[in-house]
Amino acid sequence: MDEFGVDTVLRVRLEHRPGQLARLAAIIAREGALIGEIRTIRVAETSTVREIVVETTDEEQARRVIDAISSDGIEILDTRDHVFEMHRGGKIHSTSRVSVKDLRTLRTIYTPGVARVSRAIERDPEAAWDLTGLANSVGIFTNGTRVLGMGDIGPLASLPVMEGKAVLYDAFVGISATPILINTRDPREFIETVVMVSKTFGAIHLEDIRIPDCFAIEDELRKRLDKPVMHDDQHGTAVVTLAAIINACRLIGRDFKRSRLGQIGLGAAGSAIAALAMTYGAGQVMVTDLSDEAKRRMTALGATATDFATIMREADIVVATTGKPGLIRPEMVRKGQVIFALSNPRAEITPAEAREAGAAFAGDGRSINNALSFPGIFRGVLQTRSREITPAMLTAAAEAIAAAAEPGEVVPSPLNPAVHDEVTRVVAAEVMRAGLAGTAKL
Amino acid sequence: MDEFGVDTVLRVRLEHRPGQLARLAAIIAREGALIGEIRTIRVAETSTVREIVVETTDEEQARRVIDAISSDGIEILDTRDHVFEMHRGGKIHSTSRVSVKDLRTLRTIYTPGVARVSRAIERDPEAAWDLTGLANSVGIFTNGTRVLGMGDIGPLASLPVMEGKAVLYDAFVGISATPILINTRDPREFIETVVMVSKTFGAIHLEDIRIPDCFAIEDELRKRLDKPVMHDDQHGTAVVTLAAIINACRLIGRDFKRSRLGQIGLGAAGSAIAALAMTYGAGQVMVTDLSDEAKRRMTALGATATDFATIMREADIVVATTGKPGLIRPEMVRKGQVIFALSNPRAEITPAEAREAGAAFAGDGRSINNALSFPGIFRGVLQTRSREITPAMLTAAAEAIAAAAEPGEVVPSPLNPAVHDEVTRVVAAEVMRAGLAGTAKL
Repeated sequence: MDEFGVDTVLRVRLEHRPGQLARLAAIIAREGALIGEIRTIRVAETSTVREIVVETTDEEQARRVIDAISSDGIEILDTRDHVFEMHRGGKIHSTSRVSVKDLRTLRTIYTPGVARVSRAIERDPEAAWDLTGLANSVGIFTNGTRVLGMGDIGPLASLPVMEGKAVLYDAFVGISATPILINTRDPREFIETVVMVSKTFGAIHLEDIRIPDCFAIEDELRKRLDKPVMHDDQHGTAVVTLAAIINACRLIGRDFKRSRLGQIGLGAAGSAIAALAMTYGAGQVMVTDLSDEAKRRMTALGATATDFATIMREADIVVATTGKPGLIRPEMVRKGQVIFALSNPRAEITPAEAREAGAAFAGDGRSINNALSFPGIFRGVLQTRSREITPAMLTAAAEAIAAAAEPGEVVPSPLNPAVHDEVTRVVAAEVMRAGLAGTAKL
Repeated sequence: MDEFGVDTVLRVRLEHRPGQLARLAAIIAREGALIGEIRTIRVAETSTVREIVVETTDEEQARRVIDAISSDGIEILDTRDHVFEMHRGGKIHSTSRVSVKDLRTLRTIYTPGVARVSRAIERDPEAAWDLTGLANSVGIFTNGTRVLGMGDIGPLASLPVMEGKAVLYDAFVGISATPILINTRDPREFIETVVMVSKTFGAIHLEDIRIPDCFAIEDELRKRLDKPVMHDDQHGTAVVTLAAIINACRLIGRDFKRSRLGQIGLGAAGSAIAALAMTYGAGQVMVTDLSDEAKRRMTALGATATDFATIMREADIVVATTGKPGLIRPEMVRKGQVIFALSNPRAEITPAEAREAGAAFAGDGRSINNALSFPGIFRGVLQTRSREITPAMLTAAAEAIAAAAEPGEVVPSPLNPAVHDEVTRVVAAEVMRAGLAGTAKL
């Protein structure tokens, strides 16, 4: 299955006699497509209307399937793109938690009753933790300058991604998350806007902001706000990558703390991975990037700047986040290396190639899903009211994710609810240990 | 029932024999309190645990009821403030509209599937109307400088009010509304912040902003944004007030278009009421206020500036929004006048006093509930994608609200869903008539 698979929903009318569904299925199979869900819409005297999800690698193949079905004389009543269907009308809704069933309720949740609640918060701002949704709310801020593999597509086009993040917050940890699109490429304007509206949220999730702006934005917001701030593309990714590395080391019996880790590419994710590996005690962290500024930022934190060839030659664990498919040629792989080539949709080297070239373990970006980390991390700091998210909380989260993986896997499925509970638990425990509980301000 | 009524939830243990609930009810009655909902929590061998909502005028009376019950030997297990209970944890939640039940769904709503949706919006921004929640979303912006009758309580303390508005949007018209607290008293900063995040929402609801800032903020945002902007304290209130005036005139057989309307107090609501009365064709609109600037703003629109005494002497319809209880003395009332003394919680003159003094009709602020107007107005412009909310849409909304009132009432209950449907319908119809459908830009 291709990364950008297309699901098409076909509504077809089939004659009501034996063999008709088999005939349709055979046509779809002949075109090399898969059949997903089948729903029966209507059964009439002589015909049946069904909706069939056809999974293809691209739109071209979907068209071929549709043409083949039509040529065979089967009536197609409607075709819909399943992915677009799921996004239609948006993926989140600001829903009332109270039922406005009578005038008394209306007068309690709205004027005049609400005035007493506002007065209570005016007297004691801390009461807002209890009397509003703030203790369970995250604002997801982006300017759309670096969205997934797409680059600078602007804030509006990034909204479906932000809504997706909000869906995961609700589905995985019950956090109420709200996308906020900031219409500027200027980091100063971005910062001032977040500060200006920051009282709306219990915590600040930064998303899909280009480098190097994302570093300055996160740094300054952390200084200026007394509530958790985290750029997910950096730290969410780093946590899941560290979890995968921990398990890869475990699988092949290597000691992470005595290993040299080489980070190729110092974008948002790469920089954070290198930094977190140092926090977690890697024997040595070597880094390389085309940008000298990026390398300087990491050497200031204790990493060793070097070049690509040296990393491939000397590192025990290689992590690549360069966006350059095929960058790592098989002959560069050293026997026994752990290689995570994380660029999406096409990796620096495929896991199969890397293994064939002698890698002891090889993974790609498909398993490194931030959905494993950010929900539990934010839940953990929100429920303990920590002012900040520390590196120790991130490594605790990585260990919890690693521990939740099935035998033989490096990371668990994000659909396993136990992962999010465990990440929440260990992050909250680290908040308590560090004496940060109750330090957040609204 | 006082405006700021207190509901207390008492959890009591009663012996399981006849007359015990009667005894409790009698004690509550003796203290002059009302009994609301009664819930049976547990029925055991010898006793019953019930939760009883006791409605009192204030916290003092609630304490007296509790003391009386305890003195009588009835065991109170717990007491809770019902209003605070209803606000606890916040009143809205950003909820997923999709069920994340399998990895395929996860990969559709989030990466990698979402990339195709983002690409589609990047190519054609108009696609965001369909592929995100924008067509059904409102941002509720406030800086908390003029909240209900409380004045400048700041953004944080205003959050319960904003959450209440969002509840009504969801409950009455299914709009997804999000409060945004802006932490500044400076109108320029307020404007720039709204502009900066405006792509997040399909429409902009301004709320609880002090005068005169609210005028400049609304004016400029309307100029700079190609989407609906409305300050509810002005226009939402004006629409409901006009609806009440229309019905009052109908009840006493007066022709609004040949009447002189006198507006006393030109705050946010008063200014908008006077302006909307002119739009709706009042014979003459007289205004007065302590501020010359406020009067100048209205004379520029066609109103006649005068003084309080002249209005009381000459106006056929008097509307007072001064915040000054008792301002209108009975001897000032002219026989046959329509008087709406709207200040909350205590009016310029009570309806009873005004009627006794000779008013043909008298109302106060309790019935003028914005919850009747803003949900349908925003629904109407959103579903037709109008760039703006025009005065003609507001008068259409007022007529629809007036028409939905029960015989003898001046406004309907906001819990009557037909009102919101009708307001939506007439606003949408006016959008079409004015050729504004599809003019909004994201």
